[in-house]
Amino acid sequence: MRSVADQRARVLDAVAPLPTTVLPLAEAHGLRLAQDMTAAIAVPTWDNSAMDGYAVRAGDIAAATHEHGITLRIVADLPAGSGDDPHLAPGEAARIMTGAVVPTAADAVVPLEQTDRDDPMAPLAETVTVYRAPGTGQHLRRAGEDLVAGDPVLAAGSLATGAALSALAATGHGTVRVHRRARVAVIATGSELVRPGEPLTRGLIPDSNSLLVAGLVREHGGEVVAVRHVDDDAAHLAEALRQVSQAPEPPDVVVLTGGVSEGAFDPVKQLFTGAGGVEFARVRMQPGKPQAFGRLGDAVLFGLPGNPVSAWVSFHVFVAPALAVMHGMPRERAAPPAVPGVAGADWGTPPGRDQYLPARISTRDDRVLVATPVAALGSKSHLVASLAQASGYAIVPAAVDHITRGDAVSIVRTSLETP
Amino acid sequence: MRSVADQRARVLDAVAPLPTTVLPLAEAHGLRLAQDMTAAIAVPTWDNSAMDGYAVRAGDIAAATHEHGITLRIVADLPAGSGDDPHLAPGEAARIMTGAVVPTAADAVVPLEQTDRDDPMAPLAETVTVYRAPGTGQHLRRAGEDLVAGDPVLAAGSLATGAALSALAATGHGTVRVHRRARVAVIATGSELVRPGEPLTRGLIPDSNSLLVAGLVREHGGEVVAVRHVDDDAAHLAEALRQVSQAPEPPDVVVLTGGVSEGAFDPVKQLFTGAGGVEFARVRMQPGKPQAFGRLGDAVLFGLPGNPVSAWVSFHVFVAPALAVMHGMPRERAAPPAVPGVAGADWGTPPGRDQYLPARISTRDDRVLVATPVAALGSKSHLVASLAQASGYAIVPAAVDHITRGDAVSIVRTSLETP
Repeated sequence: MRSVADQRARVLDAVAPLPTTVLPLAEAHGLRLAQDMTAAIAVPTWDNSAMDGYAVRAGDIAAATHEHGITLRIVADLPAGSGDDPHLAPGEAARIMTGAVVPTAADAVVPLEQTDRDDPMAPLAETVTVYRAPGTGQHLRRAGEDLVAGDPVLAAGSLATGAALSALAATGHGTVRVHRRARVAVIATGSELVRPGEPLTRGLIPDSNSLLVAGLVREHGGEVVAVRHVDDDAAHLAEALRQVSQAPEPPDVVVLTGGVSEGAFDPVKQLFTGAGGVEFARVRMQPGKPQAFGRLGDAVLFGLPGNPVSAWVSFHVFVAPALAVMHGMPRERAAPPAVPGVAGADWGTPPGRDQYLPARISTRDDRVLVATPVAALGSKSHLVASLAQASGYAIVPAAVDHITRGDAVSIVRTSLETP
Repeated sequence: MRSVADQRARVLDAVAPLPTTVLPLAEAHGLRLAQDMTAAIAVPTWDNSAMDGYAVRAGDIAAATHEHGITLRIVADLPAGSGDDPHLAPGEAARIMTGAVVPTAADAVVPLEQTDRDDPMAPLAETVTVYRAPGTGQHLRRAGEDLVAGDPVLAAGSLATGAALSALAATGHGTVRVHRRARVAVIATGSELVRPGEPLTRGLIPDSNSLLVAGLVREHGGEVVAVRHVDDDAAHLAEALRQVSQAPEPPDVVVLTGGVSEGAFDPVKQLFTGAGGVEFARVRMQPGKPQAFGRLGDAVLFGLPGNPVSAWVSFHVFVAPALAVMHGMPRERAAPPAVPGVAGADWGTPPGRDQYLPARISTRDDRVLVATPVAALGSKSHLVASLAQASGYAIVPAAVDHITRGDAVSIVRTSLETP
C-alpha cells in the first residue's frame, strides 16, 4: 500500500495553478492572489490627525496649563478629505477632524476636550484657548507610519477576503491579479442510487454523495459545472464523461464517487483498468483505501470511494489540496495544516493504516485543542448522518493501535461551525 | 459606557429570523435550516452487505475450514441496486456486492477472499467453496443500524454544508426548509474617500471599508445588494439611504462605516441625532467605542466606526451575530463562541474597556491555542494592512491592565486561513 503523503504528492504533481486574470477588487472576493502584492502608496498616505481637535505649532502653547490657557486664532477648518494646506503663523491654529491632513506648518494636534471649544458640532469660532501643552507630534499619524510604498502587503496565494481586499485598496490598488476558480464536474456512480427524496424500492438508496462532493467543492472555492449520476455500467460512465468534457467550458477536475473497488460491477474500475491515464491505488489510510487518480484529457480525475465518510475524508486529503494549488496556494501549503491536540474519547484504530477520523473540534478549559469522534462507533464509514457534525478530523498514525481519551492526536480543522 | 453584551443584546432584540422557503437540497447550500430535521427513512435503509462476497446461510458452512472448504451452489448475482430477493435453499449462496441488499434467507456474508472465487471481475461461477465459517450476521449492515425513521439528524439553525445536505439526502429528504440570505446594503461615508486605485490628491485616501464590509457580509452568508460611497454631507447620506431602501428587494440590513463619532462633519451623527430610530452608543470596548444602531424602515441599520480595524471588530461583534440570527441561528448561539487560549506575545491594554485584538490563531506544541496580535503595535486601529493576517481575535476584559506572553485570553476564531 502507498502512503498518504506519496499519493498526495502524485496528485499535486499532476496539477498546476489555473490561469490568472486581473479583476477590480470588488470582483475578486473569494479568489486567490496570483502574485505577491506590495504597497503602491504609503499608509497613512498623509500626515493626518488622530483626533478631532486643533492643529497647532506646539511651540506656541508650550506654556499652556489648566489654570493658564493660551489662546490661538483659528484660521482654517479642515474636515477629512480637505486638500487645504493653510499657513499657520505664530499664534494661529486650524480646527481639524480625525483623518484630515495636518497643515505643513503644524506639528501637533490638541484634542477638542483640552480646549474651550470642545463641542464638535458648534460653528467654527474665531479663537480657541488651549489648556494643556502638547508634545511635538502629539496625535499626529505620520505618513508611512504603517507601511511605505514597496512594503509587502499580501503574499501570492492569499485568499481575497474582505480584509485582504480592503488592505489592497488601502495600499493603493484598484485591481488584483487572481486565479480563476476550478471548474469541477461531479459524477456519482451506482445503480442503487436515486435522486434525493424519490421513492425507494428494495435495494435503492438516495444519492447523497453528489451533494456531499458538490458542497465540498464550493466550500473549497471551486465552481460546480456539472452534477451527474450514472449507474454501474462502464459505457454509461464513459458517455457521461464525454458529455461533461465537451462542455463549452470543460471541467478542470472530475470527481467520481463509487466504483473504484474490486467489485464485479465497479464501473470506474472497469472503464479505466488497462485504459491508461488513471491509476488505481491502495492507500494506507482508513477510511479511503481505494483511490483512483489520473488524467482525462485536460482535466484531472479523482475516483473516490463511494462510501460517504470515505468520500469526505478522501476529498479533504486529496481533492482539497489539488483545488488549493489550482487556485494559487503554494504547494507547500496546499495540504491542510494538522495541529497538535488530544483525543476527546477512546477509540479503536485500524492495523497498518493511518486513521482519519471525522471529529468535533473543541477547546478544553485548560486551553487544549480536542478532537472528539462524531460517530460513537468510531470511523465506520457508513455513518453518513454523523458527518454533518464534524468540524474537522483526527489523524492517528498506523503504528498506534488504540486511542485513549487524552492521547495526543493530530487535528485538522475543516469548519468553524461546531453544530 | 455600555457593555458589549448589553449592546449586542439590543442588536439581537431588534432582529428576527428571515422568511423561510423550501428548496431542493442542491439549491440550499450555504443557507441555514429553518426546522429540526429527523430521519424520514432508516439508515442503512436495507440489510446490506459490507463486503464484496457471497450471501450465505451461516449454518450451511459452520464446519468450513482452510483445509476443508464447503462448496455452495451459486443461485443469484446481486449487484448494488438490485431489487431481487432470491430464495436460498440449504447449500445455496448468492454473489453479492458491497451495498447490495442481502437476501431474506441469508444471515451472513463471506468475503470473496475467503473463497475459491476471489476474482471480483470473473464471470459468475456455478459454485463457490468457502474456507472459513462465518459468524451469524457477519459483514451484514442491518437496516436502521445508524438511524431509524424519526431519529434526529440536524437541528434548526444548522448550516447546509455539503455534509449536512448529504445527511439529509441519506435520511430520505429531497428538499429542506431554509431561511433566505440577508440582503445587505453597504455605505461608506467620508469626503476623503475615493474609489480604490484612483489617483489621490492631498487629503484623499482610498475607500477600503466598502470592500471590507461587503466581503465580511459574504463571508457570513449575506447577500450584498448595494455598495455606495457618500461624502460627509448628511443630505447626501439621506439620499443614498432613500435610494437603497427603495430597491425592488430592499435591504434587511444597512451597514454604514464612518461618521459616527463626535466630529463636526460626521454625517451619520448629523442625520440621525434627534431624528429617532437610530441610537448612538458608547460601548466599553477598544476598538469600536462609538456604535450607531437602530431601524431604518423595515431594515436594521448599523453605523460602524470608520477606522478599518474598528469596523472589522464591530462587524464581528455586532453585525455577524445579527446576520446569524436572521439566517436562522438560535439566538443563544449567535455570538461567536470564545474559547480559552493564551497570548502569543506581550501587549498593552486600554484602561476601562474590553479589548478586541485581531490576532493570528495557532496551536503550540503543547496543544494549547494561541492568539498572537497581527499588529506588532497592538490594536491601534489604523493598521489596515495587518487585518488580512488575522484569523481571529483575542478578548481581554477591561480589568486586565497588561498582557504577558502566556497569559490566559479568550479567543474567537474568524477564519481557517492562517496567512
